[in-house]
Amino acid sequence: MTQRGLLIVLSGPSGVGKGTVRKAIFEEESIDFQYSISATTRQPRAGEVDGEDYFFVTREQFEEKINNGDMLEYAKYVSNYYGTPKSFIDETLASGRDVFLEIDVQGALQVKSKMPEGIYIFLTLPDLANLRDRLVGRGTDSADVIEKRVAAARDELKMMINYDYAVENDVVSNAVERIKSIITAERLRVTRVFDKIQ
Amino acid sequence: MTQRGLLIVLSGPSGVGKGTVRKAIFEEESIDFQYSISATTRQPRAGEVDGEDYFFVTREQFEEKINNGDMLEYAKYVSNYYGTPKSFIDETLASGRDVFLEIDVQGALQVKSKMPEGIYIFLTLPDLANLRDRLVGRGTDSADVIEKRVAAARDELKMMINYDYAVENDVVSNAVERIKSIITAERLRVTRVFDKIQ
Repeated sequence: MTQRGLLIVLSGPSGVGKGTVRKAIFEEESIDFQYSISATTRQPRAGEVDGEDYFFVTREQFEEKINNGDMLEYAKYVSNYYGTPKSFIDETLASGRDVFLEIDVQGALQVKSKMPEGIYIFLTLPDLANLRDRLVGRGTDSADVIEKRVAAARDELKMMINYDYAVENDVVSNAVERIKSIITAERLRVTRVFDKIQ
Repeated sequence: MTQRGLLIVLSGPSGVGKGTVRKAIFEEESIDFQYSISATTRQPRAGEVDGEDYFFVTREQFEEKINNGDMLEYAKYVSNYYGTPKSFIDETLASGRDVFLEIDVQGALQVKSKMPEGIYIFLTLPDLANLRDRLVGRGTDSADVIEKRVAAARDELKMMINYDYAVENDVVSNAVERIKSIITAERLRVTRVFDKIQ
């Protein structure tokens, strides 16, 4: 029996550097993930390949997928749909290959509600701890600005609790190493090793 | 607030190479674990230091620790007690330092019942999977020997399910890298990161 692949979800607040970290991960020689390909109703641009850049579908096809429960998450931007088809991920995992999905926080929570067995990694700004102390200590921000930044950090923490792991993106190569360690460790979980042996 | 250290328990069947892997881990520069020091009623040998090699205690002191619930596990060999004192581990973890405990399977299960928050790693022989196929394919063992080895492997699997992670000890340096990844990942668990930030 083929051991099922891992679903790895990288998420985090906007501006934290998800895309940069994802690109760095895919440049690693030791890594062979399938990137989760989104479906969209927008027209392909020059050079874009169906089933590689996106699954290009009609509005009717997309809405059918929504109704069939085949969209792990979706959103509409500028009158076009964008979403993550479940069947593609399911088939890839069943073939034993790991799937990597980079997605915003709202999308990640939708995916988690449907695929809780995934590994949910929250990418976070460095030094979230002691933020107020550092800002006060630095002495460059007004009390008002400091409170706004602390409130934003608190919101970030509220999101974080929905994830399995929190990875600081201080230096991209460090973040990549941490994510690689998480994946190595997850593969060694007794529950997964047991599935493989049995 | 100091973040509590991790309790890392390395265990596995006899002959799997626990001691060798533990020694290799303690030779790593990046690692600074406190090794869990056992208590014993046996006499110190020349050169052995109390509180370093062992906590040397009297039989009365040891039995008092058992009665007080301060022995995470203990056993008697050749009329002497050997055991793992809980208070030393608790104090070390509270100071923020990680504690590493290498112990046999029976001891590990006793420790786990009292400190389930630890990280329990099962060191396993390579290629436990498909053992029978390999033995049959090799053609050097009698059917009787093969069945005995398969039964032993099955017993090992039964023990493994009580652990969090299973690490193959194919090559010591690989086993060490896997254990380091597990510890890195465990430190990034949102529950722990959250404790640290709050």
